[in-house]
Amino acid sequence: MQVLYYSADGDSAAWIPGLQAALPQAQVSLWEPGAAQADYAVVWKPSQQLLDEQSGLKAIFNTGAGVDALVQLKLPAGVPVVRLDDAGMSVQMAEYVCHAVIRHYREFAGYEADMASGKWSFRKPRPRADFPVGILGLGVLGERVARALAHFEFPVNGWSRSAKALDGVQCFAGANSLDAFLAASRVLVCLLPLTPDTRDIMNQAHLSRLRPGGYVINVARGAHLVDEDLLGLLDSGHLSGATLDVFRTEPLPAGHPFWGHPKITLTPHTSARTLRSESIAQIAGKIAALERGEPVAGLVDLQRGY
Amino acid sequence: MQVLYYSADGDSAAWIPGLQAALPQAQVSLWEPGAAQADYAVVWKPSQQLLDEQSGLKAIFNTGAGVDALVQLKLPAGVPVVRLDDAGMSVQMAEYVCHAVIRHYREFAGYEADMASGKWSFRKPRPRADFPVGILGLGVLGERVARALAHFEFPVNGWSRSAKALDGVQCFAGANSLDAFLAASRVLVCLLPLTPDTRDIMNQAHLSRLRPGGYVINVARGAHLVDEDLLGLLDSGHLSGATLDVFRTEPLPAGHPFWGHPKITLTPHTSARTLRSESIAQIAGKIAALERGEPVAGLVDLQRGY
Repeated sequence: MQVLYYSADGDSAAWIPGLQAALPQAQVSLWEPGAAQADYAVVWKPSQQLLDEQSGLKAIFNTGAGVDALVQLKLPAGVPVVRLDDAGMSVQMAEYVCHAVIRHYREFAGYEADMASGKWSFRKPRPRADFPVGILGLGVLGERVARALAHFEFPVNGWSRSAKALDGVQCFAGANSLDAFLAASRVLVCLLPLTPDTRDIMNQAHLSRLRPGGYVINVARGAHLVDEDLLGLLDSGHLSGATLDVFRTEPLPAGHPFWGHPKITLTPHTSARTLRSESIAQIAGKIAALERGEPVAGLVDLQRGY
Repeated sequence: MQVLYYSADGDSAAWIPGLQAALPQAQVSLWEPGAAQADYAVVWKPSQQLLDEQSGLKAIFNTGAGVDALVQLKLPAGVPVVRLDDAGMSVQMAEYVCHAVIRHYREFAGYEADMASGKWSFRKPRPRADFPVGILGLGVLGERVARALAHFEFPVNGWSRSAKALDGVQCFAGANSLDAFLAASRVLVCLLPLTPDTRDIMNQAHLSRLRPGGYVINVARGAHLVDEDLLGLLDSGHLSGATLDVFRTEPLPAGHPFWGHPKITLTPHTSARTLRSESIAQIAGKIAALERGEPVAGLVDLQRGY
């Protein structure tokens, strides 16, 4: 069995020996133009050329949860595309989002800044009922984040394309319920896949429906957010703050107005990192399952784009 | 029935009408020297004079979880002392500690500082197995914090005076096991009651047993921590940081070396605030239970001091 690896991040030196150790019966190698036909490809942001050349693939594995970079290419017909399915990412996402929500709700940045300037300050505790958190997207990551927020007794709303039912979460489904979901939420967390339907979903019309003093946390893709619309609502005071981990262009370009904005907390796309050993174990297990003719989780529906 | 209220924080204007509304059959008034004999006293840091004058009390209610300020006074023999029993404090404590642990583990302060200076940085993810969190004290608050940390899959150790068993927590009990507990922990969270046995427990000898790169979170009482011993271990590099919410003297005095220390995050005793409406409901419920001759939770054992 031949397995090809390619990542635009150039991290093959660690991945290829790892995949090889997990798949001793296979030959694992780095994809290069003109490589021999392989059975499986394990990729992150591959070129169209890889897909065009490799006409005998039994499956393509994406080494991340989001497949937006992959599905914008022309994919070989009938070849399953498999995304990472948790692999240690959901707990990281729960950590990131809970840290951001708690930091805002409890005003810890303000307290720390006061103390850093020598001031022992008092702020009135805010009722938890005034901090309903709305989660856009209830996939593996969104559901895990919802569970973590519910653990801290926040009111949690969830919105998804198709109807879902989750314990402790007020679930909304479909485009017609989006406005009601937004109006019921003060903090908005985006965990959607990026598709033509979800691109620019966090725009002026939608963000202005959040409760006053609202807060945006984007941990999905930069293109979900219309940057200038967020800036306008922060400037007008309708929104109180944002925590952004993803951007339309990464790294965030010099001169972008997000840099240094007093109401925006920035992190460099680190909310949920692909953990190599967990991911390799998961992909190797799925290759073995496919070889035995068994189904695997994380199959991408190319029609809907995730 | 007569109920007296007194708080050194001078917040009687809100508490007395609240208690009166919750106890319509009682007369609730502010304690002043020479006040008539009451059935119950609801107090925060009362004077010895209040206790000496009120010889007919059926119970004394402390409007906080920690009774260290109360039990250092001479208390009337045979009168039950009742502390607040959660009343919305444990979820706040879980928020505070999880925020601090996640912030340290995920290096969010470092990422945010990099981004604030225009730098898109990369840090290697750290294995969760290298961040065992040890909780000193497994009472109502310690147990709730342990549960929240376990939700994020941190290895959790717990230490208590008497043996406990908690799901997902490696439990240690008694003075003889303290060193083993510390050696198994990288992050130390103090949630102990303050007693002669626990005063100064976070000293050079104990803190130096934590794993290298350790981290201290004190949300109990300032007197649990020997300030200069923490500073020495931060300076030597054995400890990487501390998040401190409580101090030997509060507000933290001007000129104290904690102010502005680059490895110490300070907050002004805000980790778990007494929530008035929850607390009033709880105290009123307990007074009603005592009047019916029923037992109540949160009775202080005056021998052990908590």
